[in-house]
Amino acid sequence: MESSLDPFFNPRSIAVVGASAVPGKLSRIIMESLDRSGFAGEVYPVNPKYSEVMGRRCYPDIGSIGECVDLAVFAVPASAAVRLMKEASGRVRGAIVISGGFSETGREGRAAEEELKRAAKEGGVRVIGPNCMGIYDTVSSVDTLFVPEDRVRRPPKGSIAVLSQSGSFALTAMDELAVESIGVSRVVSYGNKIDVSEADCLEFLADDDATRAVVLYIEGINDGRRFVEAAKRCSEKKTLMALKVGRHGAGKRAASSHTGAIAGRYELYRAAFKKASIIELSGYEDIIDGCRALAANDPVDGRRVMIVTDGGGMGVGIADACSEVGLVVVPLPEEKKEVLRPVFPGYFTVNNPLDLTGSVTDEWFEKALSVALDGDDYDLAIVAALWGPPHLTDRLPERLAGAARSSGKPVIVCSPGGEYTRKRRALFEEAGLAVFSTPESAVRAASILLARGVQR
Amino acid sequence: MESSLDPFFNPRSIAVVGASAVPGKLSRIIMESLDRSGFAGEVYPVNPKYSEVMGRRCYPDIGSIGECVDLAVFAVPASAAVRLMKEASGRVRGAIVISGGFSETGREGRAAEEELKRAAKEGGVRVIGPNCMGIYDTVSSVDTLFVPEDRVRRPPKGSIAVLSQSGSFALTAMDELAVESIGVSRVVSYGNKIDVSEADCLEFLADDDATRAVVLYIEGINDGRRFVEAAKRCSEKKTLMALKVGRHGAGKRAASSHTGAIAGRYELYRAAFKKASIIELSGYEDIIDGCRALAANDPVDGRRVMIVTDGGGMGVGIADACSEVGLVVVPLPEEKKEVLRPVFPGYFTVNNPLDLTGSVTDEWFEKALSVALDGDDYDLAIVAALWGPPHLTDRLPERLAGAARSSGKPVIVCSPGGEYTRKRRALFEEAGLAVFSTPESAVRAASILLARGVQR
Repeated sequence: MESSLDPFFNPRSIAVVGASAVPGKLSRIIMESLDRSGFAGEVYPVNPKYSEVMGRRCYPDIGSIGECVDLAVFAVPASAAVRLMKEASGRVRGAIVISGGFSETGREGRAAEEELKRAAKEGGVRVIGPNCMGIYDTVSSVDTLFVPEDRVRRPPKGSIAVLSQSGSFALTAMDELAVESIGVSRVVSYGNKIDVSEADCLEFLADDDATRAVVLYIEGINDGRRFVEAAKRCSEKKTLMALKVGRHGAGKRAASSHTGAIAGRYELYRAAFKKASIIELSGYEDIIDGCRALAANDPVDGRRVMIVTDGGGMGVGIADACSEVGLVVVPLPEEKKEVLRPVFPGYFTVNNPLDLTGSVTDEWFEKALSVALDGDDYDLAIVAALWGPPHLTDRLPERLAGAARSSGKPVIVCSPGGEYTRKRRALFEEAGLAVFSTPESAVRAASILLARGVQR
Repeated sequence: MESSLDPFFNPRSIAVVGASAVPGKLSRIIMESLDRSGFAGEVYPVNPKYSEVMGRRCYPDIGSIGECVDLAVFAVPASAAVRLMKEASGRVRGAIVISGGFSETGREGRAAEEELKRAAKEGGVRVIGPNCMGIYDTVSSVDTLFVPEDRVRRPPKGSIAVLSQSGSFALTAMDELAVESIGVSRVVSYGNKIDVSEADCLEFLADDDATRAVVLYIEGINDGRRFVEAAKRCSEKKTLMALKVGRHGAGKRAASSHTGAIAGRYELYRAAFKKASIIELSGYEDIIDGCRALAANDPVDGRRVMIVTDGGGMGVGIADACSEVGLVVVPLPEEKKEVLRPVFPGYFTVNNPLDLTGSVTDEWFEKALSVALDGDDYDLAIVAALWGPPHLTDRLPERLAGAARSSGKPVIVCSPGGEYTRKRRALFEEAGLAVFSTPESAVRAASILLARGVQR
């Protein structure tokens, strides 16, 4: 299906306007990002100062490229953006304007932004930005980020889309996800959004086969009604999560000087999220935990949680945290206790939480999990695996993953601790289980997966 | 000053009752822990099965040691504990009973626990436990933990004491702190506490020069009045923080089957914490973040927070999170804006949060922080340092630490991200700054340091 956002998400050619040959310059880093991401189409550097940039012929202006370019990345000072946007008229389909210095800086900036908007509209150019980072897209292999890869790693191909008004927020999340090889489909930093908005992107993503879940970082939304409609349609097919920042006094002021956003009343956003079946997130940790959870699991309707652990205290803490977010720690049914009691030493606590103590073995962990999740007593399990107990081996993650697969239910692993433990977290990831470093983050993840069953 | 807990915190000799020569056995791991910790006094293995354990003469029973032992660690089945406690009468000053199988297991266990308690009382033996891990003490070099060091690292010498009803909780926190070289003074896991309670330990720690702050993990307290009195006295000289678990239905039940604790009404605990000036923590993350914050800073009276960042979105998120825990993001005073504006490019947001954008340099970060913290406009600063901006160098942490030292105020660093960023976190630690991996954890830390100024 054709979309008016195809120039951004499926471009055949890209011009980098203001491309510099000087290493370290933002425009040069964008060239490097495009090279590294393996974009297969034409890349045209545009800059009257050079005849060649990074081995590519450099054009003095957009007009001299000689063909209509799908996507132009404007890496130029704010003062030059309007003139170049006029030049782009009829010669460029979509433009990413990374330049800052517009409505986020006050009155003069607002006027310049209006002018830019008008020029784009008149020229028939769709715009992402200004004051943004643009796009990192693993489907189209487009990377317009002006941050070098040694500083901020790009995550692999995956099924989570990120829509963020803040560029640094999106980058930081990507860099964090990359460590755990949690994949993304398309990441868009749209900044002051004079044209392309989260609503436009949601409309595109609703029909995007590469995307299974969408995370939004929002400072302010201009057209609430359109947003809700687009989100509603998208959330029928994908899992949507949103963090709204600028909720309170200082945060609201900061959002306005960050992306010129009018942060608005938080209650209105909450109501809109609810209407559109968007899972409401409370901060950065929620975003990362949500992505971790959704990369390995699909959300479930329900709120009954089983807790299995070898550390009694962790079990108690997790039970508390579950109760506080509306998850229900349903007692283990009598018939399951009768199955498990003869298998385990008498000092194990066979209930929910199920405490396997420091005497635990891989087998017992697996047995406890598979018996508990059998049938329809629980919607999800949290396994708090501490690595102190001497009989646990590196085969534990694969065994737990096997039990999780057989049950068909999400299993969230919590494995807090130091050096030995941190190395073992990778084993859980390799086995396909979502693993978390604190009890609270595991519960955050569980509450996101079960968000339709609980009031977050 | 003499204390009745000296046998635990300052023993001259230690007997390991039930010491085994078989590698992997809990009692053998305790022997190894004591060897590795560098305990300078005598260590006596006691076990009729051996004449020698780990190169040490092994005694068939406590009586044959021939001298009164300060501390005996009982690593024996619950069924043998009472008999051995009777044998210890007059021959042992303090006993750590690690054995489980007492009140946490139900009616029979409760009876056995009563018997153990009586035997200890009659024999004049002070007891930590049963169902506990005992002590890790960097002052006396005592380590009775039955978990090998390759699985759970021990933190270095430091000034934070940990009192925990849950052994695994204490171990996991220690292991986590060890990664960042955050030091502890004394860690006590006291389990079912038939004798030595948190109140006893707090009385001891009140006069302990090695300890500056105390973290408590509590499932249930038996004598509330005594606890409040001991805590009150201790908190006059030290910073006290407590996590109460078993707050809700499932958690309460779990606490009871974990350490036999009667979890009680949470409101009563909150009132007691308030009375005794104990900072109330909400979970594991709070414990770790609190220790990180207090290892590098002293708490402050006040709640005015300055936020300096190079990532606008992070600044907005931190401002929101601050507001939500009662910290006040006071706008930057006009006269400070007038100082900073001529120094910075026009597109920096000179306010609170102060957004230095991706064009930031080390110098500008330092300048912003030192001007903001000068005088008495703020009680604490949160610096959200993202490492994407290309001009930042590895000298940033030392520069920020210098500004923090000159200001005499706590500076909390938040540095979220992936590989490149994580390596730089160590630089902040080395510079003596508390560093956190998410905005939320930085705000948790700030709210703990400013807890006396805010209602947590």
